[in-house]
Amino acid sequence: MSGQYIEDLIKIIAKFPSLGTRSARRIVLHLLKKRETQIPQLIKALEDVYTNIKVCEVCGNYDTESPCSICSSSTRDGNVLCVVEGISDLWALERGGLYRGRYHILGGVLSAIEGVTPEDLNIDKLIKRIEEEEIAEVILALPATVDGQITIHYISSLLKDKEVKITTLAQGIPVGGELDYMDDGTIKLAFDLRKQI
Amino acid sequence: MSGQYIEDLIKIIAKFPSLGTRSARRIVLHLLKKRETQIPQLIKALEDVYTNIKVCEVCGNYDTESPCSICSSSTRDGNVLCVVEGISDLWALERGGLYRGRYHILGGVLSAIEGVTPEDLNIDKLIKRIEEEEIAEVILALPATVDGQITIHYISSLLKDKEVKITTLAQGIPVGGELDYMDDGTIKLAFDLRKQI
Repeated sequence: MSGQYIEDLIKIIAKFPSLGTRSARRIVLHLLKKRETQIPQLIKALEDVYTNIKVCEVCGNYDTESPCSICSSSTRDGNVLCVVEGISDLWALERGGLYRGRYHILGGVLSAIEGVTPEDLNIDKLIKRIEEEEIAEVILALPATVDGQITIHYISSLLKDKEVKITTLAQGIPVGGELDYMDDGTIKLAFDLRKQI
Repeated sequence: MSGQYIEDLIKIIAKFPSLGTRSARRIVLHLLKKRETQIPQLIKALEDVYTNIKVCEVCGNYDTESPCSICSSSTRDGNVLCVVEGISDLWALERGGLYRGRYHILGGVLSAIEGVTPEDLNIDKLIKRIEEEEIAEVILALPATVDGQITIHYISSLLKDKEVKITTLAQGIPVGGELDYMDDGTIKLAFDLRKQI
């Protein structure tokens, strides 16, 4: 093969999520093809992220400063707290641009199979924030999976004595969803939760 | 969103072959999760490739030296030259480990649709090598596509007056291939080229 350096780079890239050796090889060949511009550009972007990105000590978001721009923004509603599983969910909600409150990153959901216990999640900090900040509503925007629902149940049981409104996201048929393609569970749920128009 | 630096890195990675914004986001989150170890490791591997990898001036392969380790190897057969479309084909043949001759990277195949002409390919250098080196056989290991076959035809017409054996790879049913899943063209070809056992 053509040098250990190329092999090493392929091995690192092949471990990225959703990639394998074959796609890593194609990416490395793509980088090598215009390497004078592409490799320095990628190195620069990685260095920028490495030196500048911190974890927000309040909510767990990534940003150049801590507290992050969402936590420190004066235009965002400090009374509403949206609890999400991970940063990618925060990004998804921010892309939507509808939510104007703050976030709390849980860092996962409870899972008996994967051995995720309450101690592994950012739950203590969440309770503390609800006690210390003037939170009126906690939106538990966790995944609509069994583990997600168990986590919602667990967190709401911890909060039952506190004076805070607890909500979860609506479930049902997604926009544009055809009944034909929906699983039975979603159809049953959408039926049970049907609304009068 | 959480900082322009993350966005910039996502944009660069999203342009890699077979990736898009969604997979780039997952890769960047994966890198950020263990960034103390993962990002410096990736930067180091990229820098190593950037500073050490050259294009071999003889065959067009990537290596730490030019001529590359294959061209300068004394244990490889200098009389056989295998012409391939790109480096990934060279890698595929080297993984097989059966071929012990040298290579010539064409840098593509002729294509009327994509406007690839003989001048865009490494053909002049190939002819020169065949004249100057003592090449007994040229294996045109080009893709079994229309463009690949046209390129094979073009190169062999250039070489018809030279005293060199020209071969191409065998075509037919691949190992483990079930007739049921083969296209009609392959079945027809395998029938026409059938061999007595």
